[in-house]
Amino acid sequence: MLPNIRIVLVQTYHPGNIGASARAMKTMGLDNLVLVTPRCFPDPEATRLAAGAEDLVDNARVVGSLTEAVHDCVQVVGASARLRSLPLPHFDEPADMAETLVANAVDDPVALVFGRERFGLTNDEIRHCSHQVSIPANPDYGILNLSQAVQVLAYEVFRAWRQRPESDFRMPRPSHDRPPTRAQLGHFHDHLARVMRASGFVTQPHARTEEQLQALFARAQPSRKELSLLRGLLSSLERDRNAP
Amino acid sequence: MLPNIRIVLVQTYHPGNIGASARAMKTMGLDNLVLVTPRCFPDPEATRLAAGAEDLVDNARVVGSLTEAVHDCVQVVGASARLRSLPLPHFDEPADMAETLVANAVDDPVALVFGRERFGLTNDEIRHCSHQVSIPANPDYGILNLSQAVQVLAYEVFRAWRQRPESDFRMPRPSHDRPPTRAQLGHFHDHLARVMRASGFVTQPHARTEEQLQALFARAQPSRKELSLLRGLLSSLERDRNAP
Repeated sequence: MLPNIRIVLVQTYHPGNIGASARAMKTMGLDNLVLVTPRCFPDPEATRLAAGAEDLVDNARVVGSLTEAVHDCVQVVGASARLRSLPLPHFDEPADMAETLVANAVDDPVALVFGRERFGLTNDEIRHCSHQVSIPANPDYGILNLSQAVQVLAYEVFRAWRQRPESDFRMPRPSHDRPPTRAQLGHFHDHLARVMRASGFVTQPHARTEEQLQALFARAQPSRKELSLLRGLLSSLERDRNAP
Repeated sequence: MLPNIRIVLVQTYHPGNIGASARAMKTMGLDNLVLVTPRCFPDPEATRLAAGAEDLVDNARVVGSLTEAVHDCVQVVGASARLRSLPLPHFDEPADMAETLVANAVDDPVALVFGRERFGLTNDEIRHCSHQVSIPANPDYGILNLSQAVQVLAYEVFRAWRQRPESDFRMPRPSHDRPPTRAQLGHFHDHLARVMRASGFVTQPHARTEEQLQALFARAQPSRKELSLLRGLLSSLERDRNAP
């Protein structure tokens, strides 16, 4: 779905994190995984945690350096939990990062780079990046698990892609019940007003109360079927009143 | 940080997912965890996966029913991967859901409810909810791991909170280098122009080329220190040219 966007994991310590990251990627339409000198790979833990994303793990490219992973990319964003003294271009908001990454990915390869679980990326690796991004988090406890960070940034990338006019993503919707016409709504309002008066809830035509209830039902946006259901209820209430 | 926001996990199968969810919560400022009949809890796996969030696991409230977990809440959002036939109010975008949840949480308890790993929430449990939310995902592979779903929705909740005017969250920033004055920039432009002409790069004052380079440097937004560095480089180039 987004083949030009490369997810690069640098020296991942736990193979399980590789699998969980692959799963996170696939849920968000990404499938281009590159591993820079992973400690332990291939590994059954990577496959196990990948759940239905083993294909990403199987097809992951393993390289010996970050240079090799990103040399052909036009934008390389390093995910970094801590601030550096070197003032590289920095995104405070993952959403802003994702917007530029997806725009650049239309024509050229780009990369999102994640570091080691404990130590993140080295300063030298940050220098391979064009930008940095951090995930705003709890100042007292702000380090996300590696695969969770991948999930959050992948989610933002997918969202940025969905919002582009040329993306063909359609939110799956349940079958659509047709809305009623204005005339049908009018009949319902009249029916409701009749029942309110007949029951003594209002003693005379009371425009304010009737409007308030009409507004409430309007917010519920009843479908034709639901309006029919309400009309049936109102009719039963009328019949019941009139029964000897 | 956001005590009125309750994260409710219903019948979680893997205790590791409880721990990983607790960690996800804590990174996003949430600490109110409720477990409805977890299969296996307490458990060492929950503590292990919690990393630095064991306090959330230790303080988690365990209850026997979803009613018990949410009866006092004014908004209960069920996280659901699949669409239901019952047309409950539904958020297509987690960001929209988070906005309302955080707004309601100012005054009253609210809850975000997650179901079982395999089966999600039952229809009956959905009826305990005021709203549903789903995480837009790859139509071919859209089921996030439970703790990943918690991470993404917690991230959106934290963001909605950060964006509220009364929140006191400040993005940690590196020490700020002062920007140069217009006069200092002017001196730099003149210096750059002199070096360009002296080197023969431009044979006469060439406004267009000079402006293009000035615009480039303007986008870099050099600090005073960096401008100083550039001036030093230009001076070295001049001295070097003039050296016998």
